Amino acid sequence: MEFPKENFSEWYQEVLENAEIVDNRYPVKGMLVWRPFGFQLRKLVTDWLRELMVETGHREVLFPTVIPETFLKKEADHIRGFGEEVYWVTHGGTSPLDVKLALRPTSETAIYPMFSLWIRSHADLPLKVFQIVSVFRYETKHTRPLIRVREVSTFKEAHCAFASKEDAEKEMEIIDKAYRAFWDEMGIPYLVIQRPAWDKFAGAEKTIAFDTLMPSGKTLQIATSHMLDRKFAEVFDVKFEKPDGTRDHVWLTSHGISERAIAALIGVHGDDRGLVLPPRFAPTQIVIVPIVFKGKEEVVLEKAREIKEMLEKRWRVVLDDSDRNPGEKFYFWELRGVPIRVEIGPRDIQNGVVTLVRRDTGEKMQVSEGELEGALDSLAEEIHESIAKKARNWFKGRIKDVESIEEIKNLDNEPVIIRAPLCDHWEECGKKVQDQITKELRGIDLDHKPREGSNCVVCGKPAKFLGVWSNAY
Amino acid sequence: MEFPKENFSEWYQEVLENAEIVDNRYPVKGMLVWRPFGFQLRKLVTDWLRELMVETGHREVLFPTVIPETFLKKEADHIRGFGEEVYWVTHGGTSPLDVKLALRPTSETAIYPMFSLWIRSHADLPLKVFQIVSVFRYETKHTRPLIRVREVSTFKEAHCAFASKEDAEKEMEIIDKAYRAFWDEMGIPYLVIQRPAWDKFAGAEKTIAFDTLMPSGKTLQIATSHMLDRKFAEVFDVKFEKPDGTRDHVWLTSHGISERAIAALIGVHGDDRGLVLPPRFAPTQIVIVPIVFKGKEEVVLEKAREIKEMLEKRWRVVLDDSDRNPGEKFYFWELRGVPIRVEIGPRDIQNGVVTLVRRDTGEKMQVSEGELEGALDSLAEEIHESIAKKARNWFKGRIKDVESIEEIKNLDNEPVIIRAPLCDHWEECGKKVQDQITKELRGIDLDHKPREGSNCVVCGKPAKFLGVWSNAY
Repeated sequence: MEFPKENFSEWYQEVLENAEIVDNRYPVKGMLVWRPFGFQLRKLVTDWLRELMVETGHREVLFPTVIPETFLKKEADHIRGFGEEVYWVTHGGTSPLDVKLALRPTSETAIYPMFSLWIRSHADLPLKVFQIVSVFRYETKHTRPLIRVREVSTFKEAHCAFASKEDAEKEMEIIDKAYRAFWDEMGIPYLVIQRPAWDKFAGAEKTIAFDTLMPSGKTLQIATSHMLDRKFAEVFDVKFEKPDGTRDHVWLTSHGISERAIAALIGVHGDDRGLVLPPRFAPTQIVIVPIVFKGKEEVVLEKAREIKEMLEKRWRVVLDDSDRNPGEKFYFWELRGVPIRVEIGPRDIQNGVVTLVRRDTGEKMQVSEGELEGALDSLAEEIHESIAKKARNWFKGRIKDVESIEEIKNLDNEPVIIRAPLCDHWEECGKKVQDQITKELRGIDLDHKPREGSNCVVCGKPAKFLGVWSNAY
Repeated sequence: MEFPKENFSEWYQEVLENAEIVDNRYPVKGMLVWRPFGFQLRKLVTDWLRELMVETGHREVLFPTVIPETFLKKEADHIRGFGEEVYWVTHGGTSPLDVKLALRPTSETAIYPMFSLWIRSHADLPLKVFQIVSVFRYETKHTRPLIRVREVSTFKEAHCAFASKEDAEKEMEIIDKAYRAFWDEMGIPYLVIQRPAWDKFAGAEKTIAFDTLMPSGKTLQIATSHMLDRKFAEVFDVKFEKPDGTRDHVWLTSHGISERAIAALIGVHGDDRGLVLPPRFAPTQIVIVPIVFKGKEEVVLEKAREIKEMLEKRWRVVLDDSDRNPGEKFYFWELRGVPIRVEIGPRDIQNGVVTLVRRDTGEKMQVSEGELEGALDSLAEEIHESIAKKARNWFKGRIKDVESIEEIKNLDNEPVIIRAPLCDHWEECGKKVQDQITKELRGIDLDHKPREGSNCVVCGKPAKFLGVWSNAY
């Protein structure tokens, strides 16, 4: 089986370090420092996420980092799910606190008590807020930068309250669409999957997740959307007055995306030379490298500056006029995923042209100076589509559709996603498959139906869903 | 003495609550929730701060929220200053942690260990980074929203390393200029003050602070800039190789601004009807209120929509077409500090005019539709200047320059800043004054010199500095 990166795990760590995205040497295990370049990458991704959240009617808020133990523990399923991984603040100075404070693992139990103060009547609904914050998990598993960490320093969580189940379900659809747009724009392929009961968010009635595939062959959960029904509303007494004067509990949903978005962007598109980024998400979109020869330095640099000035009105451009030789410069900027390199040499200037080099394919082309701006527009668009298409095709090739347990077992050690028909009782039958392999049941694929006439791979009854199994981060 | 707000403390709490800036009812004392309107106000202020930091060559980063006890305690003065107010994370799940983790009270001891990894040679200097994060202080004093809190959820801290003391001192000047620009643009008047030794940042050689005055008569420290010399560099072994091959410690500076910026914006400019905001920092800059009469609703609303569409290309505009009556709408938007109200009624439409109302003065004017855009430009500029000037004049009127201890004592109970000449040993003599009054020595005014020939109010020697005393938050 062909791989874009020989040893993904090693490649990934090296890119994070060499491209100066995050520094893993902070003296607390599983907690990272975002370096300036990484921070800009993070910003471009969170800006896009923020844009989508605002467009879909969510308003940004910011809640405290800590949650009193008494509140975190109010919803029984929730604390059962999170209790073991909570960091506890127990002292202020040398004094023990009256009530221990949890570093939030997620903010349901911080936000809904405030919802109960803010929501009075049906006129206050829907109430849709989001925040982008740090959340904390005392992970006992092996940590991995941006993928499994103890401080998730980029967590977008949306929390929404509605007057009816129908409205809450409509929100699940609105988020589904927004999340698809989010990943599509980043060129990251995914399956939309309903999780089995034992893999739902702690306290949710239903969890929908987006899974992508990393080059290692493991799936990565990159987004979740939870129908919380009224459980949290009952526990935190979030009620509203209906038009008829009676009072009822609200329906709640919550929806998360973390810095795994950036892990996916790096892992899915990168190649052996480092990052490959869709132009929209590249901190530097264009690097200009002057190719200087003795005696021609000034004329080349002058032209390079002129072109930089022209381009920086619309692009994030760097002119690399450092002392390094061109080869070193190419390496430096390729590693950082700059989508387009503009090379300018003395002969180019004579001919009134510049050379463009694509990061994703290495392809070179010459364009006349006058056509440069237009050429960059269409090239950026082309790169974007080409990167997304390549990722999509690779992803599709790694999804294996089969129709028997034997075929599933044969594929179990392959770095692929397995999909196979399951009956109405998909959790039960899907679990029986899981018990025979190393891959786990991720749930059922919400976008694809089993082939007409196919049967459940376990019980042989008519198939109703496509089960999905994979190894996962 | 005249006051813009009768009882500032009460007024302040009410505005925060009624304008939905922050909610003080979160179940942890001294920790607040930023509501959607407040969050937008915060964003406009932090965007401006970020712009200035980037312009002056600082690159944004993001460090973990916690600092290991072993690192926090490395610099003796630092931990002496902060130790009593640190929140400690002691457990992960039910397991005690090997090393306790502090919720960062500030990030010197988190950032400089990484500097020691990032800085190798003089070519890596200067290194100038900043982050906007939460910091935590277990305050035992009375807490007050945005002013004295246990989680400062908006703290911009810049941390910079240099090859020489001269470079570090240049940075102190660069920050001084940037901070002045920051406050000037918000129309917030200030004194720039060098703090006495006992009031320096814990671990600093020198602390420069910006103090403004709140309507209560108490000064509010709204920015600080610290020359750290090489103490932290020695403790954290931050060294660089010089061009001559020898190795030396770097010089460090750090510079902070918190959400007190927003407290100042609210307190300094507000009036009895609520917020007054410079247009640049107003989440809603223009509100359009249709004045409808029976039978004329549609024509007025149509015109209002048309004007909204025209204006929203350049302004943050709201069209209030709710069911409330005009008076309720005026009250609602005045409370939120919307700088300009546009009123449109049937007669206005007939005459081809609209009515503009200034939030800061209440002044009304009619302009023809064709001149509306130009009129708004100059009106916004005028409002900005008028708000700033009013604040500046008020501030100047509250600074009392005197030249004897008796005069100082006479003013001690007034809600003013007292300024008086001190000699070379200003800390010692300034402290002697402090011991006789309720106001405290804030330090010496760096922008103003004592009158030629004046003498120290304590020892009678020739004056060299102007001491500043105030009651402070």
